Amino acid sequence: MPQATPDPESRTRRRGRPAGARAGDAGTRDRILAEARTEFSERGYDKTSIRSIARAAGVDSALVHHYFGTKEQVFAAAIELSIAPVLGAPGALTGDPSQLAERLARFMFGIWESPGTREPLLAILRSAVSNEAAAAVFRDMVTQRLLLPVAGGLDVDRPELRAQLAAAQLIGIAMLRYVIKAEPLASADIDEIVAMVTPALQGYLT
Amino acid sequence: MPQATPDPESRTRRRGRPAGARAGDAGTRDRILAEARTEFSERGYDKTSIRSIARAAGVDSALVHHYFGTKEQVFAAAIELSIAPVLGAPGALTGDPSQLAERLARFMFGIWESPGTREPLLAILRSAVSNEAAAAVFRDMVTQRLLLPVAGGLDVDRPELRAQLAAAQLIGIAMLRYVIKAEPLASADIDEIVAMVTPALQGYLT
Repeated sequence: MPQATPDPESRTRRRGRPAGARAGDAGTRDRILAEARTEFSERGYDKTSIRSIARAAGVDSALVHHYFGTKEQVFAAAIELSIAPVLGAPGALTGDPSQLAERLARFMFGIWESPGTREPLLAILRSAVSNEAAAAVFRDMVTQRLLLPVAGGLDVDRPELRAQLAAAQLIGIAMLRYVIKAEPLASADIDEIVAMVTPALQGYLT
Repeated sequence: MPQATPDPESRTRRRGRPAGARAGDAGTRDRILAEARTEFSERGYDKTSIRSIARAAGVDSALVHHYFGTKEQVFAAAIELSIAPVLGAPGALTGDPSQLAERLARFMFGIWESPGTREPLLAILRSAVSNEAAAAVFRDMVTQRLLLPVAGGLDVDRPELRAQLAAAQLIGIAMLRYVIKAEPLASADIDEIVAMVTPALQGYLT
């Protein structure tokens, strides 16, 4: 669920109250995070700053720093919500191994085909492609939360490299279909794409 | 050859002299184009303007408009040089069909592995991902100059879609290896990647 957020109260308590924060500001962290997502999405990583996020959320920059730390760390918190739907991918590995690749492909297209889950992912992709710091945040998060769990579920030599080649196939299709919008791929039927791509993915994963 | 440029004299003559251009300005168009490439590369599509290109080339904005037209058209001319190395891909199709995928993979890695040909391509990719107008220019050029010639050389059903899925695989690898720099793919040996990716490509292309 992309909209699922961690309990703001528990995080606030764990991290401690900001200096000068009033009681009743428990929702402030969530509001800052929501504005951060919008800023990164609409303006891109380069043009977003702690200051612009603070302004959008109607708080002082120091409060953004307090809750999240550096700009990289705000970005990490913001993209954590956006990639949440993708983190279900390892779940697609369980079941009949001969259908593994098709399950994975359908799972990913289910996410990409819905604008509500696609747009936040495209926003991250844009930031990661245009900025090295954003790329590093994205890389570390995807490696820890997605690649290693998926690779751990594969019974092949070089599971991490093979999982990445399968991911590369799906990322490349997303680039051409949703970003570059190259035809015929941009308007091809999902069932046709899945049928063509499944043997390639199955070759990597089994 | 990325550095190969069309004969500037013949282009200048074909398009006619700019109003007010002095004799001996035959190299001006090339200088503008070189500065345009640098601007698009270093600042990205969004931040580059006809004015900033003109300033970098030490000419009036009207002269940039005269030679190239709109910003989209300057971009098209600038990326034409950058994608020149890739346009040799259809040549990789000729020869033993059982080796077709490996030839194509080695051809593409030959381009990506050399910083001189890789960096201009990454700059285009960044622009295309972050701006719709740049994406459209990139899409049209790649479709006309690369996709259709490659698809025309394939003896399969749905050759264009299959050529795009193969291209998606190679683009996705480039994204993860050279842009996101995700390990183990970022430092894997090219021979190992080629060996793993060849069966997938061969499945699409034959």
